[in-house]
Amino acid sequence: MKYAKIVATGIYVPQKVMTNEEFERITHMNIEPHYSQVLGITHRHISSEEETPAYMAAEAAKKALERAGMKPKDIDLLILGTDTPEAISPPTATKVQYLLGMHEHKTPAFDVNASCANGALLLDIASRYISMGDYRNVLVIGTYAMTKFLSWKYPWEALFSDGAGAVILSASEEPGYLGATMMTDGSWWYNWGIYMGAGKADLKAIENGLHKLDFRAPYPAEVNEEGWPALVNKLLKKIGRKLEDVGLILFTQVRKKSIVKVMEKLGLPMEKTHTVMEKYGYTGSACVYMALHDAIEEEKTKDLEAKLVIFITSGVGYQQIATAFIWRE
Amino acid sequence: MKYAKIVATGIYVPQKVMTNEEFERITHMNIEPHYSQVLGITHRHISSEEETPAYMAAEAAKKALERAGMKPKDIDLLILGTDTPEAISPPTATKVQYLLGMHEHKTPAFDVNASCANGALLLDIASRYISMGDYRNVLVIGTYAMTKFLSWKYPWEALFSDGAGAVILSASEEPGYLGATMMTDGSWWYNWGIYMGAGKADLKAIENGLHKLDFRAPYPAEVNEEGWPALVNKLLKKIGRKLEDVGLILFTQVRKKSIVKVMEKLGLPMEKTHTVMEKYGYTGSACVYMALHDAIEEEKTKDLEAKLVIFITSGVGYQQIATAFIWRE
Repeated sequence: MKYAKIVATGIYVPQKVMTNEEFERITHMNIEPHYSQVLGITHRHISSEEETPAYMAAEAAKKALERAGMKPKDIDLLILGTDTPEAISPPTATKVQYLLGMHEHKTPAFDVNASCANGALLLDIASRYISMGDYRNVLVIGTYAMTKFLSWKYPWEALFSDGAGAVILSASEEPGYLGATMMTDGSWWYNWGIYMGAGKADLKAIENGLHKLDFRAPYPAEVNEEGWPALVNKLLKKIGRKLEDVGLILFTQVRKKSIVKVMEKLGLPMEKTHTVMEKYGYTGSACVYMALHDAIEEEKTKDLEAKLVIFITSGVGYQQIATAFIWRE
Repeated sequence: MKYAKIVATGIYVPQKVMTNEEFERITHMNIEPHYSQVLGITHRHISSEEETPAYMAAEAAKKALERAGMKPKDIDLLILGTDTPEAISPPTATKVQYLLGMHEHKTPAFDVNASCANGALLLDIASRYISMGDYRNVLVIGTYAMTKFLSWKYPWEALFSDGAGAVILSASEEPGYLGATMMTDGSWWYNWGIYMGAGKADLKAIENGLHKLDFRAPYPAEVNEEGWPALVNKLLKKIGRKLEDVGLILFTQVRKKSIVKVMEKLGLPMEKTHTVMEKYGYTGSACVYMALHDAIEEEKTKDLEAKLVIFITSGVGYQQIATAFIWRE
């Protein structure tokens, strides 16, 4: 048995910025002060036509490779998570593999979709590939281009921002990866999604707007505010660790006020988490990797040696996943 | 370390059948004798509006659960593979989880997409979850509804058929799962796919037909005819086994003549493979599970005890994956 260790991160953020004020001016809808005060979002990044999910993913990966001092050929497996795919088929991962020049080495690449809960899930899957000893370096990427699916006519669309985050994991003799836990509740299937798909991929569906993000019923804040602490406790029990061992805990960057509440409920100080929605808006599958990258940039991981780093991600469907690592410099 | 053992299978096949003759009559295109003689396909199953990818997946899973003598609550993890998803988001797996009543137990569920190479990949991922000891019973499902993405105006569309296949894997003290190998070549990204996705999900894209399966350049037959034997040899080397150990080898059911050639190249008799394209047409992500199910039905697995069973799957992108098990009754 090997352990999977996080060795490097990289992110990509589209240049174009839309502030809350601009969103209000363009859409004639009021989102303030709710967006800046409750959600923690003051602006969003909007991907251009060229900044597709695959393009952003490849750019984030290049930065992670550079930081790891690796070449594309050093990667044994690429796993990409998104619910805003480049295409319905082939998988977005195969295009990213090509953009990175990894096709020359026939590096395996596939997609995973647990919607915005991808962040913690990909780390779990990658760690299992590494743990069994036959994969050394695994590149995971979360990429998100939800603004391409917006109608720009509902206030809740102000939530979304585009971007990508990449993490490289490598085999190590010491932990590393400790474990993960997850839960799904498919009875939420119809609440929120892009319902264009098999059987609906026709002109009638388009006329009905099914190619756009559809918001049918809200998730109550309790889903995360009660669900996240429960998930953290379940994970700690599973891996035989205590809350005191936690050095850093990163959540899906969806609502700052919920993160504050969850940290209070857990009895952890706000210094033990890190948020980036203030910088990057909500970037779905990419957001916990962007939060980790930013925490590293701000030297928040400097004193984490041998402490727990926990990733908690949530997504429509409904899904929640928590994955734990022991941090090693 | 535990081992993952295949314990049961189930399939779902849509009622509506279209023969080659009917295809020719409806589309005014000639596909015979090529389809029956080279591809091995005499008819295809067309899913109705109600027979969506999620519906077919749930029906196949119900049959596998019944055969395994299990209830939905006995399943610890559901992994679904498709490149014809129910929707772009949420993942199809979450809807299937709900249809199976597993939401009551919050059973984790997520999607994987390695296009039509999903079959062998899902077995690999599921086996790794089981091997690490924290998941006992994993349900994997391949579901395929490609006829919903057809324009019915090209002869190559006669290839596609709909259906679903499910496999349940359980933890075991003896192998079981031995390993897998895979390769991707993303330089084939543009050959064949459904290119509707992020950035293209607008009316202009629809006018250009991007919501339909697009075939831009053929994959030469060598991709499988040379790729499959190479992959089998790579896999055998990795798991330290010999060709003589092979009891059954199941391929993506895409072209019967290629399977005959590959078996010849490997020096294996045709009795050591099993084909179902004659019964079910080409069913993408579902096809190797349907082939295994049919082999079990026809008692071809009766004398396989302790022999190797190998799954070889290929898909657009381009991806090839091979996964090996020791068969246990």
